[in-house]
Amino acid sequence: MTSPAPTRAYRRLSVEERQRQLKEAALSLFAVRAPDEVSLDDVAEAAGVSRPLVYRYFPGGKQQLYEAALRSAADELEQCFAEPPEGPLTQRLANALDRYLAFVDQHDAGFSALLQGGSVVETSRTTAIVDEVRRTAAEHILAHLEVVGARGPRLRMTVRMWITSVEAASLIWLDEEKQPPLDELRDWLVEQFMAVLVASAGRDPQTAEAVRGALALETADGPAGSLARRVLPVVSDAAHLL
Amino acid sequence: MTSPAPTRAYRRLSVEERQRQLKEAALSLFAVRAPDEVSLDDVAEAAGVSRPLVYRYFPGGKQQLYEAALRSAADELEQCFAEPPEGPLTQRLANALDRYLAFVDQHDAGFSALLQGGSVVETSRTTAIVDEVRRTAAEHILAHLEVVGARGPRLRMTVRMWITSVEAASLIWLDEEKQPPLDELRDWLVEQFMAVLVASAGRDPQTAEAVRGALALETADGPAGSLARRVLPVVSDAAHLL
Repeated sequence: MTSPAPTRAYRRLSVEERQRQLKEAALSLFAVRAPDEVSLDDVAEAAGVSRPLVYRYFPGGKQQLYEAALRSAADELEQCFAEPPEGPLTQRLANALDRYLAFVDQHDAGFSALLQGGSVVETSRTTAIVDEVRRTAAEHILAHLEVVGARGPRLRMTVRMWITSVEAASLIWLDEEKQPPLDELRDWLVEQFMAVLVASAGRDPQTAEAVRGALALETADGPAGSLARRVLPVVSDAAHLL
Repeated sequence: MTSPAPTRAYRRLSVEERQRQLKEAALSLFAVRAPDEVSLDDVAEAAGVSRPLVYRYFPGGKQQLYEAALRSAADELEQCFAEPPEGPLTQRLANALDRYLAFVDQHDAGFSALLQGGSVVETSRTTAIVDEVRRTAAEHILAHLEVVGARGPRLRMTVRMWITSVEAASLIWLDEEKQPPLDELRDWLVEQFMAVLVASAGRDPQTAEAVRGALALETADGPAGSLARRVLPVVSDAAHLL
């Protein structure tokens, strides 16, 4: 509060630019502190503007600003899983995860606060926004799995479970001082996806069709080949199961 | 509110019995309505007692009763994963999941409300209780994976991710009118666990050791054998990856 007011505060911005500026300031604060511990004064200071100006753009105060910031974070997250339907599935997933994990890395504590709840500013509306991100991510991924007809419940459940486990991995990763390195975490999450898809294929003909289609596009020197060669020695002692 | 007061309300109960009665009444209401929509009057009515009596045992009102009910639900959930270290791992997991999924089935909307948050009575304390259930479940499962030395981060992360995906599956199952049948859901979740464990084994020597130990105890006519025989035909076309 003792820092001199930055002069950029008085630059003329359009309504949209100003709102974006305030939402970014709020997100950057939520990234290092829980939403509960962020005041409108803090946001005003971070954006280099006055508190009344924050209220002019967000008359609903902190709750409105939080929801708007969450909304724009959600839009960004949903876009992470938009990927052209080209190349091996593992490469498409790796591209999507690169974007998703970069968002996690950048927003840090804000990402945790967003997903873990327990915040006074959490409401059924904010929960619905987070749930919408999950559903959109699931739709994006399902669109990459080429099957005949509508995606059945087993395939959908498998994808939604994997998305939840990606969230869990992200939270644990933040909690464990960002270990393992991001590219290793990404490759591992891709492998987990292939594993759960293959296991579900054992029960569901549609998932089996999706797996066969996906594996046909994979190469020996890609992630699926590498996974297969690393896993085979581990299970090779289990011939008694066949 | 127009139903006659049940006479059992006036039976003498010990403090502990009375508290348990009220927590059970609260849980049964949370199972059909979101915590936000349950009043202390509703709890008093469901337990067949007066509102002042509810306040005598829970002077903190609804928040205190909610937390106490959550606490006892959490204790019950944590016990689901306690299982003697005998027999194949898939059988132990199936036993634990039978208890866990029975809890989900019984508490229904209350289970969703508990995990999904977005409730006015949710606080950082209630979030901590839910997180503790997850951690306890993870510790139980890790104890069944026989490895030399402390369980490393990769193995822990795999188990915690699977637990989160079990939660997700439970919520989706409740949302989709309890389909598939519980025993099928249980078997599938066990298979998902084996799948993610095997995939992680490809990257982590300790997880590989746990997988080898677990597979040695599995039998051809058990879940692991059945999974292996169902999955092999799906991946048999992928010899180009090796």
